[in-house]
Amino acid sequence: MTVMTTEQIEHFLDDVFPQRMGSIESIGEMTATLRLAIGHQHLRPGPRVSGPTMMGFADVALYVAILAQIGPEPMAVTSDFNCHFLRAASGDHDIIAHAKLIKLGRRMAVGEVQLFSASDATRPVVHVTSSYALPEKP
Amino acid sequence: MTVMTTEQIEHFLDDVFPQRMGSIESIGEMTATLRLAIGHQHLRPGPRVSGPTMMGFADVALYVAILAQIGPEPMAVTSDFNCHFLRAASGDHDIIAHAKLIKLGRRMAVGEVQLFSASDATRPVVHVTSSYALPEKP
Amino acid sequence: MTVMTTEQIEHFLDDVFPQRMGSIESIGEMTATLRLAIGHQHLRPGPRVSGPTMMGFADVALYVAILAQIGPEPMAVTSDFNCHFLRAASGDHDIIAHAKLIKLGRRMAVGEVQLFSASDATRPVVHVTSSYALPEKP
Amino acid sequence: MTVMTTEQIEHFLDDVFPQRMGSIESIGEMTATLRLAIGHQHLRPGPRVSGPTMMGFADVALYVAILAQIGPEPMAVTSDFNCHFLRAASGDHDIIAHAKLIKLGRRMAVGEVQLFSASDATRPVVHVTSSYALPEKP
Repeated sequence: MTVMTTEQIEHFLDDVFPQRMGSIESIGEMTATLRLAIGHQHLRPGPRVSGPTMMGFADVALYVAILAQIGPEPMAVTSDFNCHFLRAASGDHDIIAHAKLIKLGRRMAVGEVQLFSASDATRPVVHVTSSYALPEKP
Repeated sequence: MTVMTTEQIEHFLDDVFPQRMGSIESIGEMTATLRLAIGHQHLRPGPRVSGPTMMGFADVALYVAILAQIGPEPMAVTSDFNCHFLRAASGDHDIIAHAKLIKLGRRMAVGEVQLFSASDATRPVVHVTSSYALPEKP
Repeated sequence: MTVMTTEQIEHFLDDVFPQRMGSIESIGEMTATLRLAIGHQHLRPGPRVSGPTMMGFADVALYVAILAQIGPEPMAVTSDFNCHFLRAASGDHDIIAHAKLIKLGRRMAVGEVQLFSASDATRPVVHVTSSYALPEKP
Repeated sequence: MTVMTTEQIEHFLDDVFPQRMGSIESIGEMTATLRLAIGHQHLRPGPRVSGPTMMGFADVALYVAILAQIGPEPMAVTSDFNCHFLRAASGDHDIIAHAKLIKLGRRMAVGEVQLFSASDATRPVVHVTSSYALPEKP
């Protein structure tokens, strides 16, 4: 069961993480979908979407999926981040992130993200697995 | 044996990757050291250095170490990127990257990077292992 | 489209990799499901299934998924292997592996595996992402 | 400062993990070196040392490095395990593991391991980065 709406999460992130990338399309049970409009600052020569852009955006997507489950917590900290780059992503299209939590424990959350170019919904361009240390409850 | 000087690498990167982070402090046999001056765009609330900043900077550092060994090749592509976040890095200090190639093969390079805050040279804040697909020689 | 049947893959593996763990339950388009009957050699104190057992079994499952797509190739070599341990797996139940290829390229395959205890089909005990260098075609 | 001797660690492991691979050559401040004598059960066709053997041995080496620092704790649990396979390791030689802790925190330890064939001390065959959840102190 999610405990925050899309609007509540965006509002919370405007406070604690205003410079984040992307916007939320939808949230669900242990999932979140985000969209990133590509600007000049996200590109490498090609032009294609840069690696750091994709890693940063995937990190935001998992953070959103965690927030939707545990509520407004500024303290979730990325612990490890494993990324496979599968294909080049053209700079001409938005990037879509599908994040899914694999485990939501007391101390740790683990999730995966698939990033797609908006021009091809079948073949992911990046796959991420990442874990997050959760704040300890008092 | 390195085949490019620090100046040659910076000049090459100005052409193919002008928006990269950081500057080269030194290169050596299979190694590179870079420094990143922290600006507002690199920060998360705290303020501390953001995860995507550290991942992007580590990626640049390994690319520099590869260039120093194989010469000007715009085509090395990050294949996978594994990152452990060890400690928060204050936004008040530069970040130093020590990159080291573990393997430099014909088709693949693998390297690791340790990132330090300039305020503490003994305890890394981030550890990265990453591999790169190298261009095939004709 | 798969190019080998379950029986052909098991027969091929009997030749090139007789000491492998587990048996194939089914193969599909870019997927494979395997089952491992747990014996004394797979256990740690608890008793629970040991980490190396789970990593070795996940590796077999992805290799089977690759074989089903590319045909009998003894030369696929694990390039990197990223594993998250999510929950302890009791030694009293079989382990089930669901492997799925995320990318099948000319030089590289990338896949993920979820391992479940046969006693709980909803919560994975291990999540793996791995890549494989494929033999170059003449 | 280490709090257990090599003999104390081997004795402790004989109790809690008798089926482990390898033996301790030395321990140091945040480090451990182990040796694995290769037997038939560790081989793949070639013959070369199998991937699961190398992953299991690296896991033991990091566990030993942790024990040397925190004392006899059967409860350290592997949380994630990232492995790059760099070169084939001939089955004709022992495997040497050099483990080093990168971070030893209150809740989490992170370390890396380089595995070498005893026939070549300069080029690692496997590189591992892994993290461990530590038992909570009462």
